[in-house]
Amino acid sequence: MSEKIRVTVWNEYRHEKAEEKIGKIYPEGIHKVLADYFDGDDKYEVKTATLDEPQHGLTDEVLNNTDVLFWWGHMAHDEVDDQIVEKVQSRVLNGMGLIVLHSGHHSKIFRKLMGTSCNLKWRVADEKERLWVVEPGHPITEGIGEYIELPKEEMYGEQFEIPSPDELVFISWFEGGEVCRSGCVFNRGRGKIFYFRPGHEEYPTFYNEDIKKVLINAANYVAPVKRGDSRPEYAVNVSEPLEKIKEKE
Amino acid sequence: MSEKIRVTVWNEYRHEKAEEKIGKIYPEGIHKVLADYFDGDDKYEVKTATLDEPQHGLTDEVLNNTDVLFWWGHMAHDEVDDQIVEKVQSRVLNGMGLIVLHSGHHSKIFRKLMGTSCNLKWRVADEKERLWVVEPGHPITEGIGEYIELPKEEMYGEQFEIPSPDELVFISWFEGGEVCRSGCVFNRGRGKIFYFRPGHEEYPTFYNEDIKKVLINAANYVAPVKRGDSRPEYAVNVSEPLEKIKEKE
Amino acid sequence: MSEKIRVTVWNEYRHEKAEEKIGKIYPEGIHKVLADYFDGDDKYEVKTATLDEPQHGLTDEVLNNTDVLFWWGHMAHDEVDDQIVEKVQSRVLNGMGLIVLHSGHHSKIFRKLMGTSCNLKWRVADEKERLWVVEPGHPITEGIGEYIELPKEEMYGEQFEIPSPDELVFISWFEGGEVCRSGCVFNRGRGKIFYFRPGHEEYPTFYNEDIKKVLINAANYVAPVKRGDSRPEYAVNVSEPLEKIKEKE
Amino acid sequence: MSEKIRVTVWNEYRHEKAEEKIGKIYPEGIHKVLADYFDGDDKYEVKTATLDEPQHGLTDEVLNNTDVLFWWGHMAHDEVDDQIVEKVQSRVLNGMGLIVLHSGHHSKIFRKLMGTSCNLKWRVADEKERLWVVEPGHPITEGIGEYIELPKEEMYGEQFEIPSPDELVFISWFEGGEVCRSGCVFNRGRGKIFYFRPGHEEYPTFYNEDIKKVLINAANYVAPVKRGDSRPEYAVNVSEPLEKIKEKE
Repeated sequence: MSEKIRVTVWNEYRHEKAEEKIGKIYPEGIHKVLADYFDGDDKYEVKTATLDEPQHGLTDEVLNNTDVLFWWGHMAHDEVDDQIVEKVQSRVLNGMGLIVLHSGHHSKIFRKLMGTSCNLKWRVADEKERLWVVEPGHPITEGIGEYIELPKEEMYGEQFEIPSPDELVFISWFEGGEVCRSGCVFNRGRGKIFYFRPGHEEYPTFYNEDIKKVLINAANYVAPVKRGDSRPEYAVNVSEPLEKIKEKE
Repeated sequence: MSEKIRVTVWNEYRHEKAEEKIGKIYPEGIHKVLADYFDGDDKYEVKTATLDEPQHGLTDEVLNNTDVLFWWGHMAHDEVDDQIVEKVQSRVLNGMGLIVLHSGHHSKIFRKLMGTSCNLKWRVADEKERLWVVEPGHPITEGIGEYIELPKEEMYGEQFEIPSPDELVFISWFEGGEVCRSGCVFNRGRGKIFYFRPGHEEYPTFYNEDIKKVLINAANYVAPVKRGDSRPEYAVNVSEPLEKIKEKE
Repeated sequence: MSEKIRVTVWNEYRHEKAEEKIGKIYPEGIHKVLADYFDGDDKYEVKTATLDEPQHGLTDEVLNNTDVLFWWGHMAHDEVDDQIVEKVQSRVLNGMGLIVLHSGHHSKIFRKLMGTSCNLKWRVADEKERLWVVEPGHPITEGIGEYIELPKEEMYGEQFEIPSPDELVFISWFEGGEVCRSGCVFNRGRGKIFYFRPGHEEYPTFYNEDIKKVLINAANYVAPVKRGDSRPEYAVNVSEPLEKIKEKE
Repeated sequence: MSEKIRVTVWNEYRHEKAEEKIGKIYPEGIHKVLADYFDGDDKYEVKTATLDEPQHGLTDEVLNNTDVLFWWGHMAHDEVDDQIVEKVQSRVLNGMGLIVLHSGHHSKIFRKLMGTSCNLKWRVADEKERLWVVEPGHPITEGIGEYIELPKEEMYGEQFEIPSPDELVFISWFEGGEVCRSGCVFNRGRGKIFYFRPGHEEYPTFYNEDIKKVLINAANYVAPVKRGDSRPEYAVNVSEPLEKIKEKE
């Protein structure tokens, strides 16, 4: 890890170009709004990457110099190259933080890291979402009150087929009657993954000040720590035992 | 789920045929010894399946009629067909219990369900293993004392790259100086997975009475419960909300 | 553990006698309705105990012959004798299952076992509660659909100050805008504790068929398993090591 | 939280004065050695407190200005005043970090926060302990290799009756044949608790450079984050719902 936290914001960047309504909300793409959270703060270095760049903008050079990767995708999950997905997984297991946003629940990388379908219920109906803090001491909730209220969001509801999160930070209430585990930390290998539910492309969710706070907190939280040893890529044969083993018949 | 627990024991079944020493310990294969745990007890129906059978013995017919699947593999993980692996994963998410034994830690199915490398340290040196019970109230430990001692086993040591188990039941002490989380329950979808560390092919571990008790307990524990609804295969659009959603500007 | 599951239903039994409205809903007390779940099924032996009996009905004889204890209390938590609370705790750590209902969240025994305040938000306003199943493979949800709906309940809302549950089974949605972790399993010592949120004394919640199913499932789930050894009451000095320790300078 | 992390090291401070052998190892007390970890680093403010001071040195003034409290006790757990214990618990639930060392496993404060007996096996036999890192990405392990080796320590062995830790960071191997969950994080209320096993008074464990690193890392890790709201001391009646509740018959 460098002194600075090196953030890379990955965005599918299709909806914004294909649909006028969405393009008006995020004229330079969702990634630009997220990158702006960090831009200008010298605690961070930030760059962006999108699906239609060569290698989706996620070259080895980029991935190896990323401490925290944001991931927003939706309509083109299948177009993400399996080899890139494997590289991202490997980087996470080696300590890179990963923040998966909203419809990224169905991305290849999230499903691969979870081992489950990540299926859930959904509905787009301009409905109110209220994200309740269930772990008020958690660093990701710093500066947030008892809940975050979003006037209009897509609904995602239980049962959300994920492994039980290592830390459940937010639970959402929806106007239409559902609930969702909407802020979840998963530890995988040396890396931390934060799944955060809100962020439908038709709403200006990423401009909300509380959402911004949560995502900056999350970047700080999932950023890797330095380690005194290196991680083995394979199972390791340690033929020399640390202690003497008695010979047996 | 039928009235009986339908157990299928899957075994790679290569070592036993290829190496005389191993063939002497398990003349009809490891699967036969495991199947014999259940055979003759009318609480169970048991069958076996092996790598070199068509579809590895895991046809849809077999998988759809299995409540608990045992998995022992080692030298030929790569020969397991990806489509079969996906079917097994789907069955687990739908509620089938899965018991992964020893070197199965590196099987495709276990890695796929865990999302991590499942790497660990290892050494074959005829060394003593002592499995300590850390959750003495857990059903898998019924009838077991404070620990299980195996005079000779292969060593598997930390760091074992798995997600933090939902239930950590056993921790192993090894003569050569290592430790291992050696009895781990993972909940994935509607299914339960039990990873149990011992069972190297060169040792008669599966004849040990305590090991047998643990594996019978485990089969009972991971067997699915009946559910009042069926599991959706995809994300579900619930366009009709349960509660009225206010129209917004 | 005997062959049968020995259930004891403990109830404060004050509201029902003090308030006519409540007495009409539960004329023989909440405990009677709960005991009736098990009465007549020869898988169970059931008895009841109430606050105003000598030793609150929880003599050593009763406690030592209880596999699963239900606990409903509210207005008189402070009148429960500390010594009885300690005995119940000891029994739980020794394997007795404990099912804490609704306002029992603030009982001495639950707070003692949790180590936290167990504070939460609350409101009595005849509001709808919908309990969503978040672990559909969990034995406690057997026979339950995607959710349980209660037309009128008291609201309990987050942040509910409990340790992160070992298993989170239900999350509630409330009409008034809150959510609550409403079905939680905690493992403590050899015992299992199930906290279940609904059950306000002014509503006929315990007559609801789904609530009944959940509580019968829960009794089966938290009932203890047989162990091959006995639990030590104190720290144990094992001056004789299992392995030879080298003499050091 | 002030800008600096305010550390208070609490020590029973009896063994060091009563036994010459121990006094030679820790002439100014264990607390002095621990305080020296932080002294001179302007990231921290450090003070000490001991059992025989008035209020055990833990006045409201001290507790209210402590971000991280270390706790070492052994022979006089019972002499710690219950009111002080309650104040410490309250501070932890409000966000103060607590680091419980070695024989502190049986302290009133640890047992109160855990809700279990915290019993374990023990033996003093100059035996080797090797603490294996099981979560190599965890901030508490920063700068530590695969394990820490201590040439002589007291043995603590499983079954260690604690709730399943929220994060299991270290597992110990002992020369005499036992294992122990020896580095455990528990979240309680807004506070983090780190239990760290080594530190028997007859050995110079706290001078070990790796142990020092772990404890400095742990202080950083359990230090509270700032919160935007204050924690309620009681259950809170929110009679005004956030959403309109329909009137019912």
